[in-house]
Amino acid sequence: MEHIDDRQIKADDRQYVLHSWTRQKDVHPKIIRKANGIFFWDEAGRKFYDMCSQLVYLNVGHHHPKLMEEFKHIGEIPLASPGFATASKAELAKKIIEVAPENMAKVFFANGGADSNDHAVKIARMFTGRYKIFSRYRSYHGATFGAGNLSGESRRFTVEPGLPGFIKFETPYLYRETVHFDSEEAAADFYLERLNNQILYEGPDTIAAIFMETIPGSNGVLIPPKGYMEGVRELCTKYGILMICDEVMAGFGRTGKMFAVEHFDIKPDIMTFAKGVTCGYSPLGGVIVSREIADYFDDHVLMTGLTYSGHTVSTQIGCATLDIYKEEHLVEHAAEMGEVLADRLEQLKRFASVGDVRCIGLFAAVELVKDKATKEPLIAYGMDYGKDKAGLMSKFVGLLMAHGFYTYSHESSVMIAPPLIITADELNEAMDLFEQALTDFEKLYLFPRQNLMAPQN
Amino acid sequence: MEHIDDRQIKADDRQYVLHSWTRQKDVHPKIIRKANGIFFWDEAGRKFYDMCSQLVYLNVGHHHPKLMEEFKHIGEIPLASPGFATASKAELAKKIIEVAPENMAKVFFANGGADSNDHAVKIARMFTGRYKIFSRYRSYHGATFGAGNLSGESRRFTVEPGLPGFIKFETPYLYRETVHFDSEEAAADFYLERLNNQILYEGPDTIAAIFMETIPGSNGVLIPPKGYMEGVRELCTKYGILMICDEVMAGFGRTGKMFAVEHFDIKPDIMTFAKGVTCGYSPLGGVIVSREIADYFDDHVLMTGLTYSGHTVSTQIGCATLDIYKEEHLVEHAAEMGEVLADRLEQLKRFASVGDVRCIGLFAAVELVKDKATKEPLIAYGMDYGKDKAGLMSKFVGLLMAHGFYTYSHESSVMIAPPLIITADELNEAMDLFEQALTDFEKLYLFPRQNLMAPQN
Ligand SMILES: Cc1ncc(COP(=O)(O)O)c(C=O)c1O
Ligand SMILES: Cc1ncc(COP(=O)(O)O)c(C=O)c1O
Repeated sequence: MEHIDDRQIKADDRQYVLHSWTRQKDVHPKIIRKANGIFFWDEAGRKFYDMCSQLVYLNVGHHHPKLMEEFKHIGEIPLASPGFATASKAELAKKIIEVAPENMAKVFFANGGADSNDHAVKIARMFTGRYKIFSRYRSYHGATFGAGNLSGESRRFTVEPGLPGFIKFETPYLYRETVHFDSEEAAADFYLERLNNQILYEGPDTIAAIFMETIPGSNGVLIPPKGYMEGVRELCTKYGILMICDEVMAGFGRTGKMFAVEHFDIKPDIMTFAKGVTCGYSPLGGVIVSREIADYFDDHVLMTGLTYSGHTVSTQIGCATLDIYKEEHLVEHAAEMGEVLADRLEQLKRFASVGDVRCIGLFAAVELVKDKATKEPLIAYGMDYGKDKAGLMSKFVGLLMAHGFYTYSHESSVMIAPPLIITADELNEAMDLFEQALTDFEKLYLFPRQNLMAPQN
Repeated sequence: MEHIDDRQIKADDRQYVLHSWTRQKDVHPKIIRKANGIFFWDEAGRKFYDMCSQLVYLNVGHHHPKLMEEFKHIGEIPLASPGFATASKAELAKKIIEVAPENMAKVFFANGGADSNDHAVKIARMFTGRYKIFSRYRSYHGATFGAGNLSGESRRFTVEPGLPGFIKFETPYLYRETVHFDSEEAAADFYLERLNNQILYEGPDTIAAIFMETIPGSNGVLIPPKGYMEGVRELCTKYGILMICDEVMAGFGRTGKMFAVEHFDIKPDIMTFAKGVTCGYSPLGGVIVSREIADYFDDHVLMTGLTYSGHTVSTQIGCATLDIYKEEHLVEHAAEMGEVLADRLEQLKRFASVGDVRCIGLFAAVELVKDKATKEPLIAYGMDYGKDKAGLMSKFVGLLMAHGFYTYSHESSVMIAPPLIITADELNEAMDLFEQALTDFEKLYLFPRQNLMAPQN
């Protein structure tokens, strides 16, 4: 039931608010009337499984009682600007270092993912005295000018002409690779050889850092082949280049480990984080640096900063959030539920339009194709952000919503990344909805006359 | 009295936290044990007049009861990501448009000052289809790559090599201008003529925007001469260039008007804000755009965004903050107290080391010199950020602290920008402390053998 004030909220929203990544005339926002755990209810009372944790940040779920309680105690601590020491800032930094790889030593706090990445680039340049920054196609690092220039997809184009010295290389994407490999290790070697060449062509001594989403998220959960991350680490060490892992989306339990880097035998020099650190209950991001880099700034000025570095409220919410991960064993639980999800994704392969499924922990993508044999994607590359409004992916996401499965898509992939508190039953219920939506979608839009359940190629 | 846990907080802070704009070994942070209104008390129980509102954001003062109460009600509203309409986001956008210049139509929300400026540059480029961005020397816009490249001081150097198309021009700085002018209007003409030339040299059709702090803050409260802002507006209109005013520090009552642009007969095309919108109680910033620009994005994709755009908690705190400005008549009060402050600053001119005082509302700077006749600055240009640790400005700020007057300096200027709730008595008490500190400073470090109160030049 839509209330009168819902209509007013929507009218004011339309009149006064600019929405991201869209034409404003295409904005028809819902209102979240109520939310709890993995569920929310819209203004018409419809219930949704939040299968993307809003924007992959609500790891502890909606309306967590402990965090709601924490807000009641905000009044007990005075706010202080970055120059002061505060209990919550010091404690949160300590808690993060305790769960980070053992070479990590200090935290610089920022507001969100994008600005954290900007600060990380600056830190890498200061520490190395070099200026080139490598990052990858099919990656997203945020929308400020640093993070935007790091990004390897169309959301970068509005920060161009770009920053000098920002160089792109390929992300391993085996599903769409034209070369055939006998093993993941062979694939890793192939990509590493090309990366090594590119480093040589660009001049190893000019390169400050290689910047990567540990596991690219928005661009379709592209899990690196075995040996790849270790190989990048070796190249970095060999050439004195810093390895920077963006854990903004993959960090804090999402992949079934506290940080995604733990899936590999690597220690990055710098990691960036945001989202999961507070699960979006208060804006917070940051940069974690190794002991070596931390020590460097004892004697060298850290020439970066911001008004809300280590914001008192955000770090207090962060402390409570990290306690929840521990108390509720969310990381282990995400790993277990990841197996349930992986099973269900395997079963999706019987659908004619499912080209590939990728899953690690509760971080998954389903990539749709028009044709399994040719792998022709459902929408052509670069057709996101208003360009495909009447297109097939929008139709499919609309059908998912109609079935009560809330998520978003990028290119031809659908994101599946529910709150880490989801139970096996809930996960199965949600995946049943996904299958129903996919069945409808194929019938309505893709293969109206075919027998869809017959095995394809 | 230092508590055992204060020592622990400081130890953890030293071990785990990276502090901005400094060598880490120079970090000896205080702890704010208690705070109220314009005062805070450190861990040793010492009381301070917070004469810079932390980092010029705490306009409503420390520990405002209404905001403390507001945090208790956070639990009543579900958090929602940017795609949703929420009551607090819609309401805050509306409240901001209601107090903004009448041509302003919509708000895009971001996290802080820096990223808001990055988004503003992107919006200007999208709207105009042009790429060059003019901004000014002696300005600060933040530390992300966009905002950093906009900035016209040494904090820019870590985001270089810089963004193509970012061009700098001069800020009128009459105290240090070598040309003599008969009137402010003549000065304005001088600077406008040079700006017009630079626009012609760069190619008017390539310039998307002229980006300015309405009144540059950190760089010493540099109030533009009469007619200057109107002249810039005319040039912008003539050449189809957008006028963007950064109101991050000067906005929300600081200058005795809701926005500093109201001191002039201008309507900017875009304004950016942060700090005062929540007074730092929750991180929030944003971009306000004109009707024309808002309409453009009905049909064109707004290609920018961030996870926490319109954050539910931050916008709710923002709504309560804007109510406080109104209920407590803070803007009018700031204008009145500004007169008291201006009087006190005038009296400072009797000190031998006071070269210039500048004040508008509760936004003021005292510029110190070694010699009034030569105007030799107390520290040479570019000696901030760890380079002047043992220098004269650090000594003076230290003396101010010792007298219970808390603020910071930039170059040779000391910032005076207390919470807008300050009373005339408190302001006079604080300025008495300032004078005591300055007397000590001159005696100890500058003119140990002179009769300081004798008129100079
Ligand atoms: C991997 C990654 N890095 C950075 C960002 C940018 O974070 P924010 O939106 O908080 O600026 C995102 C956002 O989705 C992300 O997924
Ligand atoms: C005028 C101005 N713009 C932008 C900024 C950057 O804001 P933030 O520190 O929130 O990134 C500041 C910070 O002091 C500022 O004074």
